[in-house]
Amino acid sequence: MKFDKNSKILIVGLGLIGGSYAQALTDKGYYVGAIARRAETVEYALSKKLIASGTTEVTRDYVSQFDIIVFALYPKIFIEWIEKYQDYIKDGAILTDVTGVKRSVVYDVQRILKSTVEFIGAHPMAGKEVYGVENSDKRIFENANYIVTPTDDNTGDAIEICKKLGHELGFKTVTQLTPEKHDEMIGFLSQLTHCIAVSLMDCKESKDLVDYTGDSFRDLTRIAKINDAMWSELFLLNKDELLKQMDLFSQKFAELRNTLENEDINKMREMMRISTERRKYFDKK
Amino acid sequence: MKFDKNSKILIVGLGLIGGSYAQALTDKGYYVGAIARRAETVEYALSKKLIASGTTEVTRDYVSQFDIIVFALYPKIFIEWIEKYQDYIKDGAILTDVTGVKRSVVYDVQRILKSTVEFIGAHPMAGKEVYGVENSDKRIFENANYIVTPTDDNTGDAIEICKKLGHELGFKTVTQLTPEKHDEMIGFLSQLTHCIAVSLMDCKESKDLVDYTGDSFRDLTRIAKINDAMWSELFLLNKDELLKQMDLFSQKFAELRNTLENEDINKMREMMRISTERRKYFDKK
Repeated sequence: MKFDKNSKILIVGLGLIGGSYAQALTDKGYYVGAIARRAETVEYALSKKLIASGTTEVTRDYVSQFDIIVFALYPKIFIEWIEKYQDYIKDGAILTDVTGVKRSVVYDVQRILKSTVEFIGAHPMAGKEVYGVENSDKRIFENANYIVTPTDDNTGDAIEICKKLGHELGFKTVTQLTPEKHDEMIGFLSQLTHCIAVSLMDCKESKDLVDYTGDSFRDLTRIAKINDAMWSELFLLNKDELLKQMDLFSQKFAELRNTLENEDINKMREMMRISTERRKYFDKK
Repeated sequence: MKFDKNSKILIVGLGLIGGSYAQALTDKGYYVGAIARRAETVEYALSKKLIASGTTEVTRDYVSQFDIIVFALYPKIFIEWIEKYQDYIKDGAILTDVTGVKRSVVYDVQRILKSTVEFIGAHPMAGKEVYGVENSDKRIFENANYIVTPTDDNTGDAIEICKKLGHELGFKTVTQLTPEKHDEMIGFLSQLTHCIAVSLMDCKESKDLVDYTGDSFRDLTRIAKINDAMWSELFLLNKDELLKQMDLFSQKFAELRNTLENEDINKMREMMRISTERRKYFDKK
């Protein structure tokens, strides 16, 4: 398959990410179609010119015209979709996804998929604290990273097509990781941080604290506003890694607590100097 | 004492906060003097017109001309200063401070202070991840909260003067708490959040993760860049409260961890819904 301006791209699932993909690719001149659950979603996307066509019915006629299919669905629904409708996909098509965990999705999909099409996993590390097609905004990709997660079953061509898709979407960087490395990294950088934010926000009723709240608390709890259906599914699909990362954090937090309990000011300051030194890598360039 | 445009204000300690106080009050038309440890600091503040006069020598002649004295020093140095130089302060003067913990400072200072002057504690909840007079910037007060922490020993007049100072500095809100309530609140909102950020940053070497880091991790670790001398002192001076807040957080974090371990998806989603609901209070208006 060639990926060029004549390639027709289908987005399955028009939430915030699916809608933003549609917008970015339509604006680049591609023919973008969509399948959504609700008619209102399709109507909205058509009226805002996010897509060229759309439907709520999954039919062979509609699906078979597309060269690239992006699944922007929750992981379990995504796998069910493949089981149910993969026959409609035309030979040679490239499939990809946007799922936030990889081991539990990529290998399953590749195992059940017919041999005439190829699935290559990807994770667009972008989002907002709002959901739904109405909040679609391709600008969320501008400063974000797009990670392609091939397995040994993927061809070099599919990897290149998937990377090109990341660039066409407008991501700042496009990188590549194994599904295993991806899940370890995401367990630490994203899932653990969400666990921390949720736990912190759950500590107290807090309403009376609003007046006293500076930026620190606001920054640490921004992501405590969380889509519980989606994130609980992602957490469970990465259970082993996330537990490991949570335990690592608990251990460090207990270490710091003990320096306070024991008034071990040298150790406490050393921990602060390490964090100060390491945080410098993350200053945005 | 009356606090009006003729009041002369002395800032003791010209770091980021002292320098920003000086800038804000000078710009409002007050006569602002300063005492700093290093001659370069005084010279810098004079050259940038942050202050009208300044010195590195603590003398009766200099100190005795001021009506309001703001101590922008580390807690221990502040108490030592009072013990050593309080005789120089003129009768009727109002003293205040900027210290981030209150119980351990306010009562000690009030106990040792001569009866002809009055000390009233205050905490400007503002800051930056940089330090020193060169980074002075009165705009850090614009969206911030100024907390006055009177005790039973304070007069209504002093409380009013201290609140007026908060308004003159340009704080968005000026509020009032007992030293006890203040330390509980700051233990949770500020000190605990710094402990979390430091622990998270200390978990891994992390340099190789920079490319994959989205806003969540950056937001949660922004305050991991920390002045270890100042914060370790503040932590120890609020040890009992901070330990309580750290233990509360550990308990909630362990609860969330257990929902994952036990795949108790209902409880996990419930914790996420609570955090989502509560975080809404903190959306900036």
